[in-house]
Amino acid sequence: MSELRKDPVIGRWVIVASERSRRPSDFVSSTEDRQPPENCPFCEGHESMTPPEIYAIRSGSGVNKPGWQVRVVPNKFPALGINTDHVRRGVGMYDQMSGFGAHEVVIETPNHDHKLHQLSTECLATVMRILQDRLQDLQKDIRLRYILIFKNEGSQAGASLSHSHTQLIATPITPIHLKQKLEGAESYFRLKERCVYCDIIEEEKQQNKRIIYENDGYLAICPFASCFPFEIHVFPKRHQSDFFASRDTNILLADMLKIVLSKVCAGLNNPPYNFIVNTAPNRFPRRGYWATLSEDFHWHIDIIPRLTKVAGFEWGSGFYINPTLPEEAAEFLAGLEVDTAKSK
Amino acid sequence: MSELRKDPVIGRWVIVASERSRRPSDFVSSTEDRQPPENCPFCEGHESMTPPEIYAIRSGSGVNKPGWQVRVVPNKFPALGINTDHVRRGVGMYDQMSGFGAHEVVIETPNHDHKLHQLSTECLATVMRILQDRLQDLQKDIRLRYILIFKNEGSQAGASLSHSHTQLIATPITPIHLKQKLEGAESYFRLKERCVYCDIIEEEKQQNKRIIYENDGYLAICPFASCFPFEIHVFPKRHQSDFFASRDTNILLADMLKIVLSKVCAGLNNPPYNFIVNTAPNRFPRRGYWATLSEDFHWHIDIIPRLTKVAGFEWGSGFYINPTLPEEAAEFLAGLEVDTAKSK
Repeated sequence: MSELRKDPVIGRWVIVASERSRRPSDFVSSTEDRQPPENCPFCEGHESMTPPEIYAIRSGSGVNKPGWQVRVVPNKFPALGINTDHVRRGVGMYDQMSGFGAHEVVIETPNHDHKLHQLSTECLATVMRILQDRLQDLQKDIRLRYILIFKNEGSQAGASLSHSHTQLIATPITPIHLKQKLEGAESYFRLKERCVYCDIIEEEKQQNKRIIYENDGYLAICPFASCFPFEIHVFPKRHQSDFFASRDTNILLADMLKIVLSKVCAGLNNPPYNFIVNTAPNRFPRRGYWATLSEDFHWHIDIIPRLTKVAGFEWGSGFYINPTLPEEAAEFLAGLEVDTAKSK
Repeated sequence: MSELRKDPVIGRWVIVASERSRRPSDFVSSTEDRQPPENCPFCEGHESMTPPEIYAIRSGSGVNKPGWQVRVVPNKFPALGINTDHVRRGVGMYDQMSGFGAHEVVIETPNHDHKLHQLSTECLATVMRILQDRLQDLQKDIRLRYILIFKNEGSQAGASLSHSHTQLIATPITPIHLKQKLEGAESYFRLKERCVYCDIIEEEKQQNKRIIYENDGYLAICPFASCFPFEIHVFPKRHQSDFFASRDTNILLADMLKIVLSKVCAGLNNPPYNFIVNTAPNRFPRRGYWATLSEDFHWHIDIIPRLTKVAGFEWGSGFYINPTLPEEAAEFLAGLEVDTAKSK
């Protein structure tokens, strides 16, 4: 049984997943990044190796059979389970919660070797739409406070399978980093009556020193206070608090991601990276965020190439040392020519 | 010039160190952990390879000469510099600060291959005393808000040199994780009129399920809501807000660290690890923490073996997945027999 536990000092919740429990001898570092397709559960023809699918885009073929373009399945080793009762209790002075939630995998392509940025703009837009569909579906359960959408590319970024995929974890809590962002945005809004992210977009356009790419709908920058080298934030230029709201501009979002990720892969030698969607929490939270959310929170994507080791200093303090100026990182990425016509 | 930048949303400060600026092609992963002693600047006889020493324990020999037991030198590539003016300014909507501060290295032993837990209890107590001396000395500059003391053991934990050492970074800001701990402890104190860490110590003794080791002065546990497998917290059992206050019990602290680190190294196959001292911020901060600090904050050490990769999910959310039950981790470590007589 997995469970959630809350640090009594800073209020940070953590999943303790004993199904995944590992003994000391189980900890080995992986060496090879690309796994052979023979045993890959995400490859076309291997549909029986995953739990039955939740959703798929397919052309006429049967459920859990080959012939799909994008496929959504439950994670075989979920961090949280939807069939667990949602129970909160105290353990002495501590707080505990059952491991209630959902953990899904979106397999972005049937092809073992295609990476996200190598998909056509249309296919990438389809992946975005499916993520939004799953977000909307999972949001129906109001016990779920947040749907975390993220991608680990490369084993050094935490991917246990090399076949390209994105994950959704639906949790009964609002994760602490998002809560910090919500609270920060809320107090900025109280002070200024403007969205802090809208102000960042304006400021970045004015300073014009950290922009990587811009199209009609989206803006990609290296943030002023980047924690990591070549860290990237992608914002919708129109104020929107929810990732679902970008549905009508998915082609522009796909264009943005294809170009930015192609630049990252071409310029930084296909680094491992993480991709995180920061969106508003679910519509009916108990803490009343929603009332002002539509005005003060602005959804965005963080892309973090994993180029440096995070040292004790950073872990212990939350105070990061970034060895690369964001202005130089942005200039480097903006200046790279990428041929996005080579789509698959 | 390095500088500090503040994220306008969550208030997190970051050092942008352009002296350390690296180009994309500079990012290579290290393979060998143990470096050869020939070029090690921390070895006895190589004193000229470091900046002139700040402090040393030596028997009669000359400054910056061989014959020392513990040596303190400025970091050759400092993240922050003491000769920089302390300047704060706005850049459009953003906030910036000059890279004012200090960055020192405590070389714990002249021997290239001795690790911290292999030192005698007396030597380890001396290392603690020197850290406290440096803390006290750096705290005299009231522009410095916090002295971060940490150790990276192993290249996977961020150590760039394999010769055993601990670092101090003195910063003009209070790091965000410590601020979260201070604020959490403060609101607990307001509610209960008791120190949250004192309550944790009591709770852990009562539950008796997560204790690794205890002596007359200190208690080591795997915390209830551990973020990482085999994460360890070490507390002084007597209420103390400042690491400096433990001066009279350094032998007990050394005994604690020697045993706990020996268990970690023996049981987990000499893993890379981080070691972080969480102590009260400097005495005269502008935010008035000190008034209640002596009552509500309790200094402690976090030890984090680096056994798992931190994935996108954790980075994006601050919501960690820990694959090992803290109770099982504590039982495993508590049960390990270590021979601490083999001191060097």
